Amino acid sequence: MGKGRITIPTDAGFVEETKKIIEQWGADAVRDCDGTTLPENASSLAEKVYNTYFVIRGDYDWAIANKEEWQHLYLISNFNTATGKVLHIRLMDGYFDQQVRPDFASDPKKYWEVIDRTTGRLLSADEWEFDEASGTVTLKNAQAFHDYTVSFLAISLWDPVHMYNSITNGWTERKHIMYDPFYPKTSSYIREHLEKWCDENTETNVVRFTTFLYQFSLVFNDKGKERNVNWFGYTMAVSPRMLDAFEEKYGYKMRAEYLVNAGYYDSSFLVPSKEYLDYMNFIEEFVTDTVRDLVKITHEKKKEAMMFLGDCWIGCEPYGDKFATLGLDAIVGSVGGGVTVRMLSDIEGVKYREGRMLPYFFPDTFFEGNEEAAVDELNRNWMTARRAMLRNPLDRIGFGGYLALAAKFPKFMARATEICEEFRVLYDNVKGKSPKDFVTVGFLNAWGKKRSWMCFMVAHELWYQQIYSYQGILEALSGLPVKVEFLSFEDIRGGVPKGIDVILNAGEAGTAWSGGKYWLDEEIVTSVRKFVYEGGGFIGVGEPTAIEANGKFFQLRDVLGVDKEIGFTLSEDKYNIESEKSHFITADVAEKPAYGEGMKNIYAMNGTKVLDIRFDAGHMRKVNVGEVKMAVNEYGKGRAFYTAGLPYSFENARLLYRALLYTAGKEDCVEKAFSTNIMTDCGYYADKDIYAVVNNSPKPQKTEVYSIEGKKISLNLEGGQLVWLNGSEFGKKEK
Amino acid sequence: MGKGRITIPTDAGFVEETKKIIEQWGADAVRDCDGTTLPENASSLAEKVYNTYFVIRGDYDWAIANKEEWQHLYLISNFNTATGKVLHIRLMDGYFDQQVRPDFASDPKKYWEVIDRTTGRLLSADEWEFDEASGTVTLKNAQAFHDYTVSFLAISLWDPVHMYNSITNGWTERKHIMYDPFYPKTSSYIREHLEKWCDENTETNVVRFTTFLYQFSLVFNDKGKERNVNWFGYTMAVSPRMLDAFEEKYGYKMRAEYLVNAGYYDSSFLVPSKEYLDYMNFIEEFVTDTVRDLVKITHEKKKEAMMFLGDCWIGCEPYGDKFATLGLDAIVGSVGGGVTVRMLSDIEGVKYREGRMLPYFFPDTFFEGNEEAAVDELNRNWMTARRAMLRNPLDRIGFGGYLALAAKFPKFMARATEICEEFRVLYDNVKGKSPKDFVTVGFLNAWGKKRSWMCFMVAHELWYQQIYSYQGILEALSGLPVKVEFLSFEDIRGGVPKGIDVILNAGEAGTAWSGGKYWLDEEIVTSVRKFVYEGGGFIGVGEPTAIEANGKFFQLRDVLGVDKEIGFTLSEDKYNIESEKSHFITADVAEKPAYGEGMKNIYAMNGTKVLDIRFDAGHMRKVNVGEVKMAVNEYGKGRAFYTAGLPYSFENARLLYRALLYTAGKEDCVEKAFSTNIMTDCGYYADKDIYAVVNNSPKPQKTEVYSIEGKKISLNLEGGQLVWLNGSEFGKKEK
Repeated sequence: MGKGRITIPTDAGFVEETKKIIEQWGADAVRDCDGTTLPENASSLAEKVYNTYFVIRGDYDWAIANKEEWQHLYLISNFNTATGKVLHIRLMDGYFDQQVRPDFASDPKKYWEVIDRTTGRLLSADEWEFDEASGTVTLKNAQAFHDYTVSFLAISLWDPVHMYNSITNGWTERKHIMYDPFYPKTSSYIREHLEKWCDENTETNVVRFTTFLYQFSLVFNDKGKERNVNWFGYTMAVSPRMLDAFEEKYGYKMRAEYLVNAGYYDSSFLVPSKEYLDYMNFIEEFVTDTVRDLVKITHEKKKEAMMFLGDCWIGCEPYGDKFATLGLDAIVGSVGGGVTVRMLSDIEGVKYREGRMLPYFFPDTFFEGNEEAAVDELNRNWMTARRAMLRNPLDRIGFGGYLALAAKFPKFMARATEICEEFRVLYDNVKGKSPKDFVTVGFLNAWGKKRSWMCFMVAHELWYQQIYSYQGILEALSGLPVKVEFLSFEDIRGGVPKGIDVILNAGEAGTAWSGGKYWLDEEIVTSVRKFVYEGGGFIGVGEPTAIEANGKFFQLRDVLGVDKEIGFTLSEDKYNIESEKSHFITADVAEKPAYGEGMKNIYAMNGTKVLDIRFDAGHMRKVNVGEVKMAVNEYGKGRAFYTAGLPYSFENARLLYRALLYTAGKEDCVEKAFSTNIMTDCGYYADKDIYAVVNNSPKPQKTEVYSIEGKKISLNLEGGQLVWLNGSEFGKKEK
Repeated sequence: MGKGRITIPTDAGFVEETKKIIEQWGADAVRDCDGTTLPENASSLAEKVYNTYFVIRGDYDWAIANKEEWQHLYLISNFNTATGKVLHIRLMDGYFDQQVRPDFASDPKKYWEVIDRTTGRLLSADEWEFDEASGTVTLKNAQAFHDYTVSFLAISLWDPVHMYNSITNGWTERKHIMYDPFYPKTSSYIREHLEKWCDENTETNVVRFTTFLYQFSLVFNDKGKERNVNWFGYTMAVSPRMLDAFEEKYGYKMRAEYLVNAGYYDSSFLVPSKEYLDYMNFIEEFVTDTVRDLVKITHEKKKEAMMFLGDCWIGCEPYGDKFATLGLDAIVGSVGGGVTVRMLSDIEGVKYREGRMLPYFFPDTFFEGNEEAAVDELNRNWMTARRAMLRNPLDRIGFGGYLALAAKFPKFMARATEICEEFRVLYDNVKGKSPKDFVTVGFLNAWGKKRSWMCFMVAHELWYQQIYSYQGILEALSGLPVKVEFLSFEDIRGGVPKGIDVILNAGEAGTAWSGGKYWLDEEIVTSVRKFVYEGGGFIGVGEPTAIEANGKFFQLRDVLGVDKEIGFTLSEDKYNIESEKSHFITADVAEKPAYGEGMKNIYAMNGTKVLDIRFDAGHMRKVNVGEVKMAVNEYGKGRAFYTAGLPYSFENARLLYRALLYTAGKEDCVEKAFSTNIMTDCGYYADKDIYAVVNNSPKPQKTEVYSIEGKKISLNLEGGQLVWLNGSEFGKKEK
């Protein structure tokens, strides 16, 4: 039984029991949690003592004393349609007056915008008036039946995370009000306060920053319910002073519209504008400069600085080019599945990365009679995360909540003990050992590296009907023996970077993931065509390369071999409707594959090989149309694969792996370091010549495992089992 | 038993039997048919004798003697991607050399276009060369990995309809080659030939023009199979002489691109460009001028001129503003259902309109043992058509094929006899009697009146997955007690015309049916908003008013109360997910309504009433999203209704009727001249105070029928029965 790499929550009133659990799990860190306080002698419990620190919202008194430095945000009013000449727009309609208030004091004519949303015209400042008393903007010469919006600066009255918890959980603690370190007094204050806090919290040796300066966009409606949540949003990293500074630095005005985008705000699903990228960079520079100072102070106080990847993480992009310069010791975030593991574990420039596992030790899970469910959730979370850990493990895992609750469930405690130990062994075998990969895939979208493992994500890890058919690609990739590079369109403008075997482009038309207008850029289009023509691979999912122009919807339909019928080519006969009986890619697909939401109206070009096609039952083959679901195409020396959708499943993960090998022209690699049963994965670590064979399902599985040289052995795995094999164990049996 | 309004085919070898059937069915016209010839004494058989006449393709010798006047067409080559500097494009790749040949003799540099389909750039004439011997166009300075097309004029070598029949049915007759009356010799020839033909065909008193000058677009592939069919296409109404004349008249060059549209050709699904509308008008002027002459000749020869609506009908638009000036006596077309009935019966400017009913008397239906199926097809065709006839009947019906085949099936002959009689009674009761309508609906799309009852149509009446969910709207309307006006966007620019109760907009985003860029036109948008605000109704199906701009996808989402999530507002919480328990519109919907292909990702705005919403089974209500399928919204004094799709069914026809009444604010009309059972329809004819109650299903139905004053009686109808009631019959029972 090893020790270390495990963090547990504790509480002042649970010290003796904490000690036992530390022993049992081999934990080496304790942390506080919402609703708990660290014991006085916390540092005697464990090597590491984490303590939550709020940089810009912990001090109510400071906030009240410095109202002029409260944080701001950009909001857009509801759309209001004029029915006559005069139109009153009530700014707060649909917003929560406990959270926000329009900032009438900061020259509205300078920072606000009134836009005709029927024509897109920006109204000049003399076309509208504002009135603070009624909270309205008035147009006196509106055009009848045009709709208008006001984009306005508002003041944040209450930190929305704290507000949510207070409202939902009935917290009575004083409000957390956010002050803005872009203003001079707060800038000094947050540095001084951290010094003081470090001095006062001697037991703490890890400052758990929750987080730094600006909250991701989180806005509530007039009923106090969430109205808009954008985990990637910069609309709360805005203030009059910032806007002025931006203009001074970049030489142009940062318009409200660049952030509110006609109500879409700065959804990461939008292809970002140059102005928005400038603004992100501007904020990132300020935030990272400030965080560098905070880290320095923390280190001077002989403590480690740990960043929580959430809440006020805006401007501290873990995949930004400034991140490694911060000197942060650690980053911590929650683990929902393989994607979130890789989002954390692939971050560079910190000493360690920690994942907060599920379930939380909260009463909604840990109530009497629910122990089996708690164990199930733990197993599910661990097995999903483990696939990704076998590619690149987190450095630490931990739990949150009330330890006293979990401690009442012996089966849960026992299973957690096993997992802690399994994690440590895995870490020792895998970390830094460069697991074998057979293909390098370039995941192409408008964000590239900056949104590594963050593509298609809405509201951090929620299921959405519109995204699961694409998120499955990343979940599959997180545990496959392939190298994943996130590429932006700019990265491939001069040619696809060396080392990339396959380009993957997935998503709905017009989104940042598919790429939208980038596919009208001749340099982008020709770069990909050349890459594939010369032997590269291309995988498209959903609506890849899609934008209607030049007689096509998929701009690379010549490469993909498929296009989408959007009505304009219905007059064209489509004869390519016979599917291949068998194919390398679909060899492990037992039944009809699942495409999730799929994609309608896809047809194959002449010469394409159709792998799966569906016909309307009522009109089967009566007319020569059908919906192509999967296809492969040859393009020069290269190959392309299209699928209508790839929700995560074991079968689809295997399908994707085979598609990657096929399009990379590496079919011969399939029986190398490979476990045949789709419920299992195999990783190979050449340094030690060892194999990890892992059963991702809760049931026993039988599988054949191939060594890196293609030698084969049979294996029976228990439900969820992870087995380590030495290369020598394959020697006994010839393939 | 009446007589008249019935046309039957006959044959030289079937004279005596024809006489008996004429008697039995009360027929008053005989016609020839492919593969038959009229008897010598045809005029003694019936009042009317139709004879097929081909204006521009009947005379092989003329064609051979005048090769320089053969017809042309515009084609676009396949898309060819350059992989180096030199690119050869083989024009005939994918085309059928028996049908077409590139016209190298008519200055290619003038009439052809080479376009970079990666950038959309039109290449200058000195950037490419052509070579007749190899049939290629060559670019010597192509940009690598750009794709290029050549749009070229080709000569039609064989009339495609004749070619298809020859190949499919092994006809050995000499080729029909199309000569172009835009050229002087042919112009004189077709007039002279008609005169001569009329003189020679003394037994004929109805010249059945099949049809006039230019064939709709019908192009075959290199395997001799159909490649592209556009029943509305003008690409075969093109010649060097026409293009020159167009330029002279309109002052600008008619570019190939205006007709080939990057390979979409002139699909009626495209929002037509100004240039294309100019060209249509140009062709229409020429064709109608010519047809007027042909009609005049026909009349001088004491015969009637009948137009077949098909084949060479291009430029003779039955809903064009020149049609009524032609002096045509009649129009004939095939009847597939209610839509095709109305497409014919609503045509103005002819004395009579005739529908060719199904089944054709061909061996594929009339073989031994198949009599029941033939009767079924007859019944189905009649019952579907009859719904529409009760709104506006055809003036005549007829059959085609070999009468001798049908004569062998006594049950078929008996049922046809009944139908002929039922049609005559219906005609007498309905024709010109202005059946009562309760709502006037404006069917709004980019074509308006010109494509009355022709919307969503591909290849004349074929089923397509992409259209049936919209075609159902027209099929429903064809038999509902509502007045239908087809409106173009230009028609509503200055305001919705008086008399319209409800505007209906349906189709996929970007198509001519939905309207595409018209919804960015402030005059259009405000016109509809004002109309609804002041009390009008609006019905949207599928993707109405859809084009992404100004923060919305449905530009009239404020009116419709719904929008489509295309990825940019996933961060926004959607709470409007409870559906109404009951509603006026859905009162007759028994089970879950059928939406056909439906529409994904529709959500309701705040305040909208959701009538039907579906949740993903696996994640039901876990997150606050769901797919709205039907919704109603109030907008000012007006109302809007949205549905995701409306394939034709009795239930959906009723749903649409109720939606029309509801959005028009006329719910009180529902129990007037109304039959409750959804399998039935009721028409009311005030002139005679009579009601038609019709069972559209083959099974007996029980229903309640309301008089125009709301008095009610119960009725039992046999399968397919049509019952005529007098107003007085309602007096007996009070409601």
